[in-house]
Amino acid sequence: MAEHISKQFDMELETIRTRVLQMGGLVEQQILSAVEALLAGDIDKLDKVIAEDALVNAMEVTIDDDCLHIIARRQPAASDLRIVFTVIKVITDLERIGDEAKKIARMGKTIYQSERYQMPRFREIEKMADSALSMLRRALDAFARLDTSAALELAEADQELDEDFAAELRQLITFMMEDPRTISMSIDTLFISKAIERIGDHATNISEYVVYLVKGKDIRHTTLETKKRETLG
Amino acid sequence: MAEHISKQFDMELETIRTRVLQMGGLVEQQILSAVEALLAGDIDKLDKVIAEDALVNAMEVTIDDDCLHIIARRQPAASDLRIVFTVIKVITDLERIGDEAKKIARMGKTIYQSERYQMPRFREIEKMADSALSMLRRALDAFARLDTSAALELAEADQELDEDFAAELRQLITFMMEDPRTISMSIDTLFISKAIERIGDHATNISEYVVYLVKGKDIRHTTLETKKRETLG
Repeated sequence: MAEHISKQFDMELETIRTRVLQMGGLVEQQILSAVEALLAGDIDKLDKVIAEDALVNAMEVTIDDDCLHIIARRQPAASDLRIVFTVIKVITDLERIGDEAKKIARMGKTIYQSERYQMPRFREIEKMADSALSMLRRALDAFARLDTSAALELAEADQELDEDFAAELRQLITFMMEDPRTISMSIDTLFISKAIERIGDHATNISEYVVYLVKGKDIRHTTLETKKRETLG
Repeated sequence: MAEHISKQFDMELETIRTRVLQMGGLVEQQILSAVEALLAGDIDKLDKVIAEDALVNAMEVTIDDDCLHIIARRQPAASDLRIVFTVIKVITDLERIGDEAKKIARMGKTIYQSERYQMPRFREIEKMADSALSMLRRALDAFARLDTSAALELAEADQELDEDFAAELRQLITFMMEDPRTISMSIDTLFISKAIERIGDHATNISEYVVYLVKGKDIRHTTLETKKRETLG
């Protein structure tokens, strides 16, 4: 009987982990669609991204609810409790990545629907989005495989993405100074690159929760040195 | 004996609630200091805000840990479990408000330490910061008094703050177009007003968790109409 309950409990934990990965897949698709639609100037696709953010939000609410039911019925302890806690934290970040995808889509609409002096130039945005997407995939993969080494890699990738954002900012300021007619569009582009930079932060958070899940050690808000010690040690 | 345990449990729940309010107080002080230091051009005070974000982060980690211990030892159900869940969610938002205070301080330093063509103009920033701080206080007060009516008020206040941000953005764009020498400082000012706008979002989230705590209803991601029905009904 105890074994039976334990198996069912394991299955429930496995189900919420699977749902987190489904939510992660949806969020990944949202970013991808937002950036593709932005590059193509595809307003319908941008509208679809904005509308489908509701699905991401609904998944967060459902998974939170599942977690609470598991805690109430199963009274998990130790590593089981850490799984549930990690899921509650991870989906908060996934939901906010969803928000960033929606923001990218909204800014894209603003850019294409306003009068433009020249076509937008999204080369850097494309590069930053590739980095952020690869960070998100790496974080979700780490969550799926309980891989703690991602935290260190993502902390380093996040620093690079921050530097890319700073470079993009400097470049946009140069454009605006050279030709003030580009100011409005440059500000919209700036917000898009800011949204992408934020996706990197959230992906990094997720990989840090995986370290907590596996090792029980909280490495949030620590230096790169500490992360190195805790994830590789 | 059961009563004894129950009383001790109540005390533990009360302790984490008190810690959330202490963390909220610290975060409120961080915003206040950041904005005061920004208006006064006080670099030492800006540095202090940046350094003390570590205290906010440490409080999040400690309170999360307390919550996990309570779940593991007390196996809370129903409303007790909702308290713990709400605390875990609320402190995530408080920690991110702390991040926004740190961003304001960093941008302030950038503005005062770079060569300036003219003195920065922070009248709108001051007004927006007042609104965001009052939203945060209202949200913390709602959490302390289990007051569900704040959610609706804050959803409305958040719309106003979003409009203030949009107005500030338009005004900054006008400045930049009129005089490209103000571009760099205007962008820094824009990021500061964006950080303040985000504080309003987080305060609104907190007030929505209070509705969940009291009524067991999840009103995140719902329309103003639904919030009205659920909070007043």
